[in-house]
Amino acid sequence: MSEIPYKTYLTENEMPKAWLNIKGFMKNKPDPLLNPATMKPCAKEELTPVFCDKLVDQELNSTDKYIEIPKPILDFYKLYRPSPLVRAYGLEKALDTPAEIYYKFEGNNTSGSHKLNSAAAQIYYAKEQGLKAVTTETGAGQWGTALAMAGAAFDMPVKVYMVKVSYEQKPFRRNVMNVYGASVVASPSDTTNAGRKILAEHPGTNGSLGCAISEAVEAAVSDPEHKTRYVLGSVLDQVLLHQSIIGLETKTALDKLGVKPDIIIGCAGGGSNLGGLIAPFMAEKLEGKSDVRIIAIEPASCPSFTRGQYRYDFCDTAKTTPLAKMYTLGCDFIPSANHAGGLRYHGMSPVLSKLYDDKYMEAKSYTQTEVFEAAVKFARIEGTLPAPESSHAIKGAIDAALECKAKGEKKVIVFGLTGTGYFDMKAYDEFLGGRMSDYIPTDAEINIE
Amino acid sequence: MSEIPYKTYLTENEMPKAWLNIKGFMKNKPDPLLNPATMKPCAKEELTPVFCDKLVDQELNSTDKYIEIPKPILDFYKLYRPSPLVRAYGLEKALDTPAEIYYKFEGNNTSGSHKLNSAAAQIYYAKEQGLKAVTTETGAGQWGTALAMAGAAFDMPVKVYMVKVSYEQKPFRRNVMNVYGASVVASPSDTTNAGRKILAEHPGTNGSLGCAISEAVEAAVSDPEHKTRYVLGSVLDQVLLHQSIIGLETKTALDKLGVKPDIIIGCAGGGSNLGGLIAPFMAEKLEGKSDVRIIAIEPASCPSFTRGQYRYDFCDTAKTTPLAKMYTLGCDFIPSANHAGGLRYHGMSPVLSKLYDDKYMEAKSYTQTEVFEAAVKFARIEGTLPAPESSHAIKGAIDAALECKAKGEKKVIVFGLTGTGYFDMKAYDEFLGGRMSDYIPTDAEINIE
Repeated sequence: MSEIPYKTYLTENEMPKAWLNIKGFMKNKPDPLLNPATMKPCAKEELTPVFCDKLVDQELNSTDKYIEIPKPILDFYKLYRPSPLVRAYGLEKALDTPAEIYYKFEGNNTSGSHKLNSAAAQIYYAKEQGLKAVTTETGAGQWGTALAMAGAAFDMPVKVYMVKVSYEQKPFRRNVMNVYGASVVASPSDTTNAGRKILAEHPGTNGSLGCAISEAVEAAVSDPEHKTRYVLGSVLDQVLLHQSIIGLETKTALDKLGVKPDIIIGCAGGGSNLGGLIAPFMAEKLEGKSDVRIIAIEPASCPSFTRGQYRYDFCDTAKTTPLAKMYTLGCDFIPSANHAGGLRYHGMSPVLSKLYDDKYMEAKSYTQTEVFEAAVKFARIEGTLPAPESSHAIKGAIDAALECKAKGEKKVIVFGLTGTGYFDMKAYDEFLGGRMSDYIPTDAEINIE
Repeated sequence: MSEIPYKTYLTENEMPKAWLNIKGFMKNKPDPLLNPATMKPCAKEELTPVFCDKLVDQELNSTDKYIEIPKPILDFYKLYRPSPLVRAYGLEKALDTPAEIYYKFEGNNTSGSHKLNSAAAQIYYAKEQGLKAVTTETGAGQWGTALAMAGAAFDMPVKVYMVKVSYEQKPFRRNVMNVYGASVVASPSDTTNAGRKILAEHPGTNGSLGCAISEAVEAAVSDPEHKTRYVLGSVLDQVLLHQSIIGLETKTALDKLGVKPDIIIGCAGGGSNLGGLIAPFMAEKLEGKSDVRIIAIEPASCPSFTRGQYRYDFCDTAKTTPLAKMYTLGCDFIPSANHAGGLRYHGMSPVLSKLYDDKYMEAKSYTQTEVFEAAVKFARIEGTLPAPESSHAIKGAIDAALECKAKGEKKVIVFGLTGTGYFDMKAYDEFLGGRMSDYIPTDAEINIE
């Protein structure tokens, strides 16, 4: 066989034509979303006032194994996909490991992360339904940026409630969203009842993701014409479905190279990237055709898998959403100011939670200084400056490769490099200047019931 | 023939194995660099105290048509190359033009621009010569970032003199260089005689590229062990040589697609990107095998080609460099604070200057507000957020496509998208907020002799 290239790109014809629905492969399905008032499973009509119709269908679909990708979404994907599967020759050499290391790089688009895969789908279905706007919240800004880009491409107005502290500290993120025509509001704002209430009670507040969600949902449902919906970039089953394109491309590329992964590693906040990366590999595992190890990496400061509890909980802080059965630190849990903003979520994808509870995957946590150490090492060797979120997976892959070295095992490690860190330079500067601290929550801070 | 894909990637085996030296194809060679003291052509030994030996050889080589790319450089290129040739279907549709529009995208690497192509080569030769450090200057930061990345990969210390105003206004750029291990000094600094002199005379100065060059050169030549050299990211013939990889990949991809370009467009500051993009196409034109139109786009605020004079001039403001025969606005010309920092240079590549003077190419200038208008349009349609420099070429391509529409001509337009604008959001914000102004220098400000 010829040597494996540094980067493997599929042709556009080799791109997947359908998303993979992990739930369709699970014998033990995840427990359904519950209406907190009735404690009964949410029916479609309870969800469609908030979410797009087609997206609710996808959310509730636990039988179909594959769902066709509409052509306009495929065409949009071709603006930045297929993404490369990279052989990390430099990293292997630097670690002096017998392991082969590959990573799927999702950062080669202006939004800088994999979030665009679901943003495109959600905007498309909103357009198809004849809606006139979508609302969302954003913390660090990746999701808001992705949604703004998709909104520009499909001519769908996007309103982003951006957590106030990020709005002020990351003006460049906000500017990027403005370039793509999105309107960006610092949350809490005086444009919603939820925002006004918080502002009255806490005039100097920095805002929070919980509050921004409440504002975005209120802005959607209070449209008198009922032509606005709310969209969300992680946690939901539909998001994992759209993100399965990451794993499907990865698997096609590995198959072309004749390579079979032994260990797959991804960072996990709400689970969108990890759920997407592992999709086809987990499907094989669920069918008993594979014994690939799958490892979720999370921050020690927000350890849903490793220290949370598997139970029903609210998806937001304000307790306005349906209840989801998931690994959770409690919806009142306040994550510390870890720089991996995208991993600062109290809960975890219900699908991944079920798979983890059923022992189909493992989880591991790292502190942020060890993660940044891995990030700087990776940047200097492999060239790409990784996002703090993605760097959790890098640290996981480095440790797995060193374990192979210790044991003399020539395993194949595949990890997800979800995005780039251009907007996270303040965090890198703190790390390089020795000013980065770690925070690990006490047991008392985690809400175990 | 099957439909042309959105993106064409060469395989790593299809990547060029040799750079193309345009001078080798020119019957009328550019005039040589002159020593200002003797007014005689610079000999190799006059240049090697400042530049690496092998790079001086390349600078003075006007006969070889191709120069082999050493394997370690090729391996480094594989970390981020081949870069995609993109068919701008969205832009064609939005403009409703019969023209086909393609762009070669060089922004898919952490340095965010094509500068890495020459940085890798220059750092490699410095390493091969057994040097212990290189120095350079950077204005906006693209070149410094590229050099830092290459320095990290080849384990070569890099010292960057960064124009003070950029150092202070673009801390994130500086932080990226720090991640890659480069030391970054605000210029003027108290680490050189040149810097101390300027600081004494102008205590509150913001710095300038001219001063930063003087400091970087002094820092190189004053190394008592004589193991340090100065490197430069544009203007020089050697830089155009390294950048020819852009055009060679572009030509191979177009040939694979069976497409022949009618018009090639690139932005021009010092000429590194344009010279690289056009290399093989210009070679054919010089051999009489092609009549492709080649158009350089420059800012109206710094119009070397369109309003400068073809004569011998210094390459720096402090008049310490050899004299180069080039289109120049005069080495005392102070470009206005145009946001396309990479295009703010008083001179132009001597090779391109000669080709322009011999009518092998055309030039055109635009004001920055028309350039940013094109940039925002492009971002919303094609997804990628372009650098201000690159956006000059976008504006040129849009106008060429509209001309095709007016005339009903189905021409093939190829332009160079040199980089991304993630670190230029302040400029986008000014544009979107209607606070961007244009400056066109008066005839009196341009130093015509």
